[in-house]
Amino acid sequence: MKKNNPVIEILIAGDEILSDPIREKNAQYIADSLRTAGFEIDFITIAGDNFPNLSDAMTHSSERADIVFITGGLGPTSDDITVETFAETFGLKLVFDEHTMRRIAAMFKHRNLEMNDSNRKQAMIPEGAKVLKNPMGTAPGIFAHAGNTDFYFMPGVPAEMEKIFDEAILPRVLSEYECVEKDTAILRLTGINESELYGKIGGINGAKEAVRYYPGLEGITLKIITDANAQPSASEISDKICEKVGNVVFSTVGESLESVVGNMLREKGLTVAVAESCTGGRISNRLIKVPGASEYVNAGVIAYSNESKHKILGVDKKLIETYGAVSAEVAGAMSEGVRRITGADIGLSTTGIAGPGGGSVEKPVGLMYTGITTEKGTETKKLQFFKDRLINMGIMSQAVLNNLRYSLINLR
Amino acid sequence: MKKNNPVIEILIAGDEILSDPIREKNAQYIADSLRTAGFEIDFITIAGDNFPNLSDAMTHSSERADIVFITGGLGPTSDDITVETFAETFGLKLVFDEHTMRRIAAMFKHRNLEMNDSNRKQAMIPEGAKVLKNPMGTAPGIFAHAGNTDFYFMPGVPAEMEKIFDEAILPRVLSEYECVEKDTAILRLTGINESELYGKIGGINGAKEAVRYYPGLEGITLKIITDANAQPSASEISDKICEKVGNVVFSTVGESLESVVGNMLREKGLTVAVAESCTGGRISNRLIKVPGASEYVNAGVIAYSNESKHKILGVDKKLIETYGAVSAEVAGAMSEGVRRITGADIGLSTTGIAGPGGGSVEKPVGLMYTGITTEKGTETKKLQFFKDRLINMGIMSQAVLNNLRYSLINLR
Repeated sequence: MKKNNPVIEILIAGDEILSDPIREKNAQYIADSLRTAGFEIDFITIAGDNFPNLSDAMTHSSERADIVFITGGLGPTSDDITVETFAETFGLKLVFDEHTMRRIAAMFKHRNLEMNDSNRKQAMIPEGAKVLKNPMGTAPGIFAHAGNTDFYFMPGVPAEMEKIFDEAILPRVLSEYECVEKDTAILRLTGINESELYGKIGGINGAKEAVRYYPGLEGITLKIITDANAQPSASEISDKICEKVGNVVFSTVGESLESVVGNMLREKGLTVAVAESCTGGRISNRLIKVPGASEYVNAGVIAYSNESKHKILGVDKKLIETYGAVSAEVAGAMSEGVRRITGADIGLSTTGIAGPGGGSVEKPVGLMYTGITTEKGTETKKLQFFKDRLINMGIMSQAVLNNLRYSLINLR
Repeated sequence: MKKNNPVIEILIAGDEILSDPIREKNAQYIADSLRTAGFEIDFITIAGDNFPNLSDAMTHSSERADIVFITGGLGPTSDDITVETFAETFGLKLVFDEHTMRRIAAMFKHRNLEMNDSNRKQAMIPEGAKVLKNPMGTAPGIFAHAGNTDFYFMPGVPAEMEKIFDEAILPRVLSEYECVEKDTAILRLTGINESELYGKIGGINGAKEAVRYYPGLEGITLKIITDANAQPSASEISDKICEKVGNVVFSTVGESLESVVGNMLREKGLTVAVAESCTGGRISNRLIKVPGASEYVNAGVIAYSNESKHKILGVDKKLIETYGAVSAEVAGAMSEGVRRITGADIGLSTTGIAGPGGGSVEKPVGLMYTGITTEKGTETKKLQFFKDRLINMGIMSQAVLNNLRYSLINLR
């Protein structure tokens, strides 16, 4: 029979997290995954990589929690002491796991690298523990017991942690424990600010309690959670929000904007190419990050200097002299140029002053233009952002991809 | 006399932080302020707003810490239970603080708001505790003892927390405790893996205790910390490491690789252009993210399809047919092509199989080539990475920029 409502603790090992707790992302991932499955976290503890503190934290978590998720400190170096500390704290021997050693050796061989003696340490496992396969790195995940408490060990590298958690840990937890079922929904929005959004959906019945806001450079994510039998349910609240805010919602399943746009391009059989000045390659990179992007991206151009706008994209030099490189006219000529030289169905462009330098009274830092050229012709748009270079590049790439999304809704 | 090296714990009360730890910013503020003053944090604990869990966390922190900073749960509503929990846990009475009540009443009057009975709760203070003035909100800061431990209570609203911490708490901690001054150094390295690095520097006197490793997709950062009067000092250990590992160290001041390479290009008066296939614009984007990059980057090309490699970069179609797009030959032709069409001093290129699809037995996922063309000619390099698309794009961009750095060391 499954057990009910376990006490859950997340234990993060690492001096670097104590001095920079803001760098900690793994706890959020675990908390989100468990909450979606209906579990609540009871404690999160961060302790340094030294035996007395980490051991104290482990001892105490074994006294109060049924399940402890530990991340960090599984690497090959001497400041990676999580497994040794666990074994010593609970009087367990460390045993050599031949299978893990072979897997680590194979990874080194695959990359043509010399394996070091220190990696042997990563194959030492507490007696009675089970190895959880890490397909992405050398440190194995580990499942061990101390008293009545289940300890799950994961490396601190987020990609590795997430993979092991999803594939080896969560299914095991779900098979042993049950909890109150939840109804959840997720919405991703862009092109609306948080206070405006809050004003629009605050009045929706049930939204105040159920909706959490996660704003960022790539729009706002809303997580909506209710009990499974609640009235209204998370899905009903989500539907009401969509009705109210319209197509600033770009995903109802948590996809990134570049994935959404990529799927639209694929479905419509269209290709896109971007000519980037102020965004310096970020838009093409976001598009190409998505697996399978070769179906709708063939090429792109980074035309950072005036000379390159002319030479590679064929933008008329007189246009640049007359209106300046940061202008609607040049943005339009750039999107036309990149569409022509790449043969893409849709050409996009960016030109602007990313900052921190380069602004003037008429053309301040943060002024940007984007162009879009399709079979229907060219349109341009003026945008004004902030003073920070990285923030401007991030918001602009989001605005351009969202502009593309709106155009695709109307194309063909 | 001042006491030395206190054990310090930050205790955060709040269900909302357990479910969204990423929203927690107060711990970072406290950790940064204390670290600047020479103190290290030993534990950070997050516990929910319920009596058993919060009480358990308080009890345990009083057993292991000399100073506990508590944030959150000081508000007027029924889920704000931090002070009551503290009093009940340590058997203290709550007493009514007339002065705090008058201050809260004045704040309401100033804002022309009706005071609610629930605010009376905020004037209840554990016996023997001292009120710490909160100039910005109703909840007072509180300084109390339990056993030998100092407990500092602060509201969870960051602006209020910071004000109370800066004005009333930090000066008090500094007057009671002193800490050992530290010597610190930072090194950033790339092109070496963690276990190899560890093997090389493990033997350096003092390194084992002083060096912390922070590996990531953009190389490894080492933070070296010793007491100020230690022998060897952090700076001496840092120098020894540099001697031992040579030019895999790209920065001794914490700069990014793209900044380092950018400075080298600027100093040598050279420009660079990148032709990217498998990295999809990431390398140009990293270069252009650095303010002032227009001095050494004019343009770049994303040549993702075979057709675009030929059409934009002028790569001979026969070369692609004979060797395949993922080959040393095509990588070399791409770096030559991008140098020619942009007029840059240095041309770089990437071509490879980023994954997850597209691999074969001879050309597996993660196989990548890079080319570099300078006035001295063209060189290419073969690299083998992993199965994950984003990891491959990240590591490859790092390898290519590092390759450029090595070339720049020898150029002109």
